[in-house]
Amino acid sequence: MKLSEKHCQACAPGTPALAGPETRAMLEQVPQWRLLESGGAISRDFVFDTYWAGVVFVNAVAWIAQKEQHHPDMELGYKKVGVRFSTHAAKGLTENDFICAAKVDRLLE
Amino acid sequence: MKLSEKHCQACAPGTPALAGPETRAMLEQVPQWRLLESGGAISRDFVFDTYWAGVVFVNAVAWIAQKEQHHPDMELGYKKVGVRFSTHAAKGLTENDFICAAKVDRLLE
Repeated sequence: MKLSEKHCQACAPGTPALAGPETRAMLEQVPQWRLLESGGAISRDFVFDTYWAGVVFVNAVAWIAQKEQHHPDMELGYKKVGVRFSTHAAKGLTENDFICAAKVDRLLE
Repeated sequence: MKLSEKHCQACAPGTPALAGPETRAMLEQVPQWRLLESGGAISRDFVFDTYWAGVVFVNAVAWIAQKEQHHPDMELGYKKVGVRFSTHAAKGLTENDFICAAKVDRLLE
């Protein structure tokens, strides 16, 4: 099943983070995202033609986040938005981060 | 006139940034904001009861920003929002930053 068709699973504190090889395999499915913080988070920057487009994009990502109960950190600037996913309960990356990244990418298809 | 009742003025590149005493005087009018980057920006963090409240707050601040044509950097996290104003054309703070900060504060009155 494609990542974008999956749904996030609730993570209890202490959930293990993905190991390096798993992370790299999932990253291949969302190649426009980059690894941050020694592999503990992924982020992607988006550029828009207007300020409003960036604002509305933040709302669309927030919709996905609330639906999946997995919330990114977002940065909204002038005609640009940064989205960063990480799983606090795992202190690193889990499949949930990649599922949400894939769903965000799908907004732009 | 109160800062929150003023409107931003267009800033040409090279507009002088406020000096330290002017900055401190204006900061007294928006005391919940803090100086960042050796006085080159101001920011305030906001906490909300729900994720949606933070999302809608970002929209309200974006409305002010577009109306005044002075756009902050915003960080949207889970139930929290950070707002940071700076004037790129002045490479520091101008009255515009404090006007917008005061208008943002007024959203919470």
